Amino acid sequence: MRPRLRDLGIEIGALPTGRHNAITDVAGVLVGHATVVRDEPTVARTGVTVVVPRSGDSWTEAVFGGWHNFSGNGEMTGIPWIEETGLLDSPIAITTTHQVGLVRDALVKLAVEQGGVDAFHLPVVAETWDGWLSDADSFPLTEEDVRTAFASAVDGPVTEGAVGGGTGMICHEFKGGIGTSSRVVESKSGIHTVGVLVQANYGRRDDLRLDGWPLGRLIDKDEVPSAWDEPPNGGSIIVIAATDAPLIPIQCQRLAKRVTVGLGRVGGYGHDSSGDIFLAFSTGNRLAPGGDPWKVDVMPMSDMDGLFHAVADATEESIINALCAAETMTGQKGRTAHAFPVERVRELIGAR
Amino acid sequence: MRPRLRDLGIEIGALPTGRHNAITDVAGVLVGHATVVRDEPTVARTGVTVVVPRSGDSWTEAVFGGWHNFSGNGEMTGIPWIEETGLLDSPIAITTTHQVGLVRDALVKLAVEQGGVDAFHLPVVAETWDGWLSDADSFPLTEEDVRTAFASAVDGPVTEGAVGGGTGMICHEFKGGIGTSSRVVESKSGIHTVGVLVQANYGRRDDLRLDGWPLGRLIDKDEVPSAWDEPPNGGSIIVIAATDAPLIPIQCQRLAKRVTVGLGRVGGYGHDSSGDIFLAFSTGNRLAPGGDPWKVDVMPMSDMDGLFHAVADATEESIINALCAAETMTGQKGRTAHAFPVERVRELIGAR
Amino acid sequence: MRPRLRDLGIEIGALPTGRHNAITDVAGVLVGHATVVRDEPTVARTGVTVVVPRSGDSWTEAVFGGWHNFSGNGEMTGIPWIEETGLLDSPIAITTTHQVGLVRDALVKLAVEQGGVDAFHLPVVAETWDGWLSDADSFPLTEEDVRTAFASAVDGPVTEGAVGGGTGMICHEFKGGIGTSSRVVESKSGIHTVGVLVQANYGRRDDLRLDGWPLGRLIDKDEVPSAWDEPPNGGSIIVIAATDAPLIPIQCQRLAKRVTVGLGRVGGYGHDSSGDIFLAFSTGNRLAPGGDPWKVDVMPMSDMDGLFHAVADATEESIINALCAAETMTGQKGRTAHAFPVERVRELIGAR
Amino acid sequence: MRPRLRDLGIEIGALPTGRHNAITDVAGVLVGHATVVRDEPTVARTGVTVVVPRSGDSWTEAVFGGWHNFSGNGEMTGIPWIEETGLLDSPIAITTTHQVGLVRDALVKLAVEQGGVDAFHLPVVAETWDGWLSDADSFPLTEEDVRTAFASAVDGPVTEGAVGGGTGMICHEFKGGIGTSSRVVESKSGIHTVGVLVQANYGRRDDLRLDGWPLGRLIDKDEVPSAWDEPPNGGSIIVIAATDAPLIPIQCQRLAKRVTVGLGRVGGYGHDSSGDIFLAFSTGNRLAPGGDPWKVDVMPMSDMDGLFHAVADATEESIINALCAAETMTGQKGRTAHAFPVERVRELIGAR
Repeated sequence: MRPRLRDLGIEIGALPTGRHNAITDVAGVLVGHATVVRDEPTVARTGVTVVVPRSGDSWTEAVFGGWHNFSGNGEMTGIPWIEETGLLDSPIAITTTHQVGLVRDALVKLAVEQGGVDAFHLPVVAETWDGWLSDADSFPLTEEDVRTAFASAVDGPVTEGAVGGGTGMICHEFKGGIGTSSRVVESKSGIHTVGVLVQANYGRRDDLRLDGWPLGRLIDKDEVPSAWDEPPNGGSIIVIAATDAPLIPIQCQRLAKRVTVGLGRVGGYGHDSSGDIFLAFSTGNRLAPGGDPWKVDVMPMSDMDGLFHAVADATEESIINALCAAETMTGQKGRTAHAFPVERVRELIGAR
Repeated sequence: MRPRLRDLGIEIGALPTGRHNAITDVAGVLVGHATVVRDEPTVARTGVTVVVPRSGDSWTEAVFGGWHNFSGNGEMTGIPWIEETGLLDSPIAITTTHQVGLVRDALVKLAVEQGGVDAFHLPVVAETWDGWLSDADSFPLTEEDVRTAFASAVDGPVTEGAVGGGTGMICHEFKGGIGTSSRVVESKSGIHTVGVLVQANYGRRDDLRLDGWPLGRLIDKDEVPSAWDEPPNGGSIIVIAATDAPLIPIQCQRLAKRVTVGLGRVGGYGHDSSGDIFLAFSTGNRLAPGGDPWKVDVMPMSDMDGLFHAVADATEESIINALCAAETMTGQKGRTAHAFPVERVRELIGAR
Repeated sequence: MRPRLRDLGIEIGALPTGRHNAITDVAGVLVGHATVVRDEPTVARTGVTVVVPRSGDSWTEAVFGGWHNFSGNGEMTGIPWIEETGLLDSPIAITTTHQVGLVRDALVKLAVEQGGVDAFHLPVVAETWDGWLSDADSFPLTEEDVRTAFASAVDGPVTEGAVGGGTGMICHEFKGGIGTSSRVVESKSGIHTVGVLVQANYGRRDDLRLDGWPLGRLIDKDEVPSAWDEPPNGGSIIVIAATDAPLIPIQCQRLAKRVTVGLGRVGGYGHDSSGDIFLAFSTGNRLAPGGDPWKVDVMPMSDMDGLFHAVADATEESIINALCAAETMTGQKGRTAHAFPVERVRELIGAR
Repeated sequence: MRPRLRDLGIEIGALPTGRHNAITDVAGVLVGHATVVRDEPTVARTGVTVVVPRSGDSWTEAVFGGWHNFSGNGEMTGIPWIEETGLLDSPIAITTTHQVGLVRDALVKLAVEQGGVDAFHLPVVAETWDGWLSDADSFPLTEEDVRTAFASAVDGPVTEGAVGGGTGMICHEFKGGIGTSSRVVESKSGIHTVGVLVQANYGRRDDLRLDGWPLGRLIDKDEVPSAWDEPPNGGSIIVIAATDAPLIPIQCQRLAKRVTVGLGRVGGYGHDSSGDIFLAFSTGNRLAPGGDPWKVDVMPMSDMDGLFHAVADATEESIINALCAAETMTGQKGRTAHAFPVERVRELIGAR
């Protein structure tokens, strides 16, 4: 069992975490993975991660959400509707670039089959590119993988690292993948939780920082080889932020924008080739699309600062958690993405 | 007393109007004008129009709002905050291009003096350019004019035509200015009013349509000379839309975007030189910025179609009302903007 | 052979059309359709339309583009990258809502196979919903259909009506589908063409206007039954605008926004259930993504007014052309969408 | 003479600076200040800073620009036009919140007087709030101050700290103000400079970091009192980024967005009360608004990564430079904003 960042003695920010230090600390949020690792007929190191915004009613009631496009070399379906109305009425999936479409249509099928959706559905599916380790051009994912990820969605601890959509990902030239973290925030509006989940596949090693400390430069590439033999051209990060604070869409957009702070502090710059796309949603209100006028709770704008700290800090920690959890993986063409050397990092931390 | 569009026998759309067919039909909305027409020391044909979103509490409680930038060759202050939070916490003013700043700071002073605002304030002031009739480069407006407009803000019928901010404006090559209209909409969410006020200073005569009918081409320039001796280069239109339907900011943005439909039907194209900027707000909720968690009423998205028709239709009618009301005006350099020939139009309508 | 709008004696606006009055009048733009009409194993009235921005080099060189989200209840993939950089480097496809994903991944495959794309690709695929006539929940489209549409893309006249992505669509309660039109514009920057292609699936009959004339109200539902037995809940329109005027991305966004004017004049309001999403691109510059510094021709902003008229007028005419071309179609559950009664319309026009 | 950050032995990032480590390292960019410090008739600690994008032709030729609204509790005029066309055709001014209007209209006057502008002008004026030290409600700035700032604009070294618009500002609870920095970047497109100027008035001390190192927490408030006796409610930061890399507007927007990374690394979170608004412009092309078709040089998107590092790093350094330069200031009501203790910081750095 590999340590998480906190097991190395480093805490990001001053706010406490939720129970599992995971996006699932926001009540009702579920996470499921389908991990596809096989060498035949093609080398696949890929998968799907599904985040369900609200257990129980996810097909029939919407939550409010908002997105931010920090660096747009990526894909997230479902954007026009979220941008127009701030309604998120589907499970969210994160996967590999080439098969966003398969995953998206599979979610539509699930909506038709399970949700009693009788017209149309505009699911949110985002991606980062795993084609360095995985033979992405063989299109290895199937609809069944999406069903598996959805069916396995649960609350409680979230498996991190090279799982689900994060299976084949690379981050700061180490093995990357899925990471998560959460924060508990108190304000005049009460006590709320912010949870973050990332699919981390971006960045240069030299830019990597742990709580501000420029660790990346201290890990020599002779010691731990870089996953890249050349400058990365497929880096990206998808960040999903959830909160039970009652936010309206414009506030979800605010929250999504502040993800940038956490990413920037770890070492993200929004490179040209990077699709750094963030989605935030609030479980604080359930909206029945065709029903009676809505009565909505809203946190006043001036109470939001704690949420902004929380989302930045939890993003930072989620990325490092993804690094900590992911083990060394060898994929197609003999390529190896080496794990973040957690024991060496522990030593370096001790010697600071 | 010049007729309004309805007095000519033309109604736009199927929805009924409010009592005054004016933005003030939305309860609590007030409108005031300061009109500056003088020939010494410089030729001034200018002014300020103030729209107060909520009588009584406009300094201490905000309403939700949203904007749309259809054609950005213009100015509206206050945009970053409205874009970020959707809170509109100031009176709105519309004036002449060169003196947006004077009007904006004057509203800050009013906030300091009357509102007990102890920190800062980001008022919304928009403009169109009256420098064809008015010697705009002499900066004729004063802070006192802003105070006059604010102090005169009332509900009930709204004076239209060459008044307030619309004093020196030109529209479809006729004399333009301020116009207003309203609609009453019924939906599952109840009965609501949408009111629109425009400061109309844009457009070519050949493009002018009355309820789709290409009237502009029928009014010969020998008969009624064009206000322009050359293609217009300062045209713009500001549209303020108000409703008592309880909308959150993202819905106000939706409403503001649909203004485009009404403008397009009259003959607006969003020309390069045109600042066609729209602001919509909802009086349906009062938000106390620093207070308790908000309880907010929200009209479900699927109930909004009536509002979309209402705002498009009321925009269309407001523009024509501005034309109908404005009388011929002579300004600087002997330039004359001729009135829209309402009696000739009545004949043409009869002969259709 | 059904008439187009011009064959009925109505011309929209003052600008001349291009040779074919089609989007393909913009040199290099190709259009292909795959039309899927069958009753077994499920009732399919669906398809795919592909627009290739530049024949010859579409896989290796990008063009500039920009989008506008007028009413977001729809899907268009590829948005984050277009929003970030304004680079359009893929064929565009328009199809049915439920199978956007299939079409999107199929374009990725084509990019891999034909284009020598070695990393990733973010194609643009948009949709409207054909599930009233077609059994959309049976997911009838296949990857092969996408290949067919792409392989059949040609210049010259474009087949309109119930073809390609427009096969199962409904517009203003008549049978809708694909329509196209073009305009030629002269400015100080030279002579340029603007072409538009729509997939029209929106609107109420009572709102339909022909060049401003409220024709829709004149066609009784006893005479020509409505396609809807209840208020439409799946309406949408996708508009693709192309020009050879050399525009940078921000200018393509300007052009896309002005599509709203044409749509509004025909009778579109951007209803809540409508995904009215517009994409504009310029073939005036070819951009080699990884190459030397770009030398780019740019039309000055002040020369763009002609393009704005052109795109509004061509959008208006494209929608009516879609109506004119589409023949009555019966689909699932015995439902029939009746053709726009062009001969009756001809009579009504004559009797105006 | 107080040291700048580099004099303390800390360099941000790996890129070299320009000659003066200032925004004026971008050829043609000028900076001027008017500093207003007086105690009668009211206590004024305020001013104006002017950034001229291109010496010589700033009234007659535009440059391309773009903005980003990271946290919108602030004002920047001129946004609709920059958002619509990406043309920046005015000097930029930064000042105090309450008098944005005065400064804005004064720039219009200068345009009329000096620039031969015969119609209208939409200048860019941004602000942060100095009302803790300065009696902002007395509206102390005059048009003459704006003229002074503009007339004093020069290239070469830029005065930093409590000068110009930064006079009364507070940053991370120390005295703040104006800071600047630059970077030189090499790419396949050649060698380019990125320069940044900030007006820094935001942030909590505990969040302040120097190159990632959490210095703020090490400076006890008993040792150096906080400028705030309560949580800040007026914090904001305006960032102006200039480059001679030839960028089109959408690329300027990209650059502006990456400013967030630098701000986040120093300790900015985009608090609710913070107006964190960024403007980037490129001097790489001069655009004559009414002239011939433009020939524009454009850096390919894939060459931009160096610029992204440069703007983030120079933003980070500019903020710390503002802190380093600003001396302790006492203002109204006996309030004192204490200087960042550079010698104590030097010791702390040495003892790391």
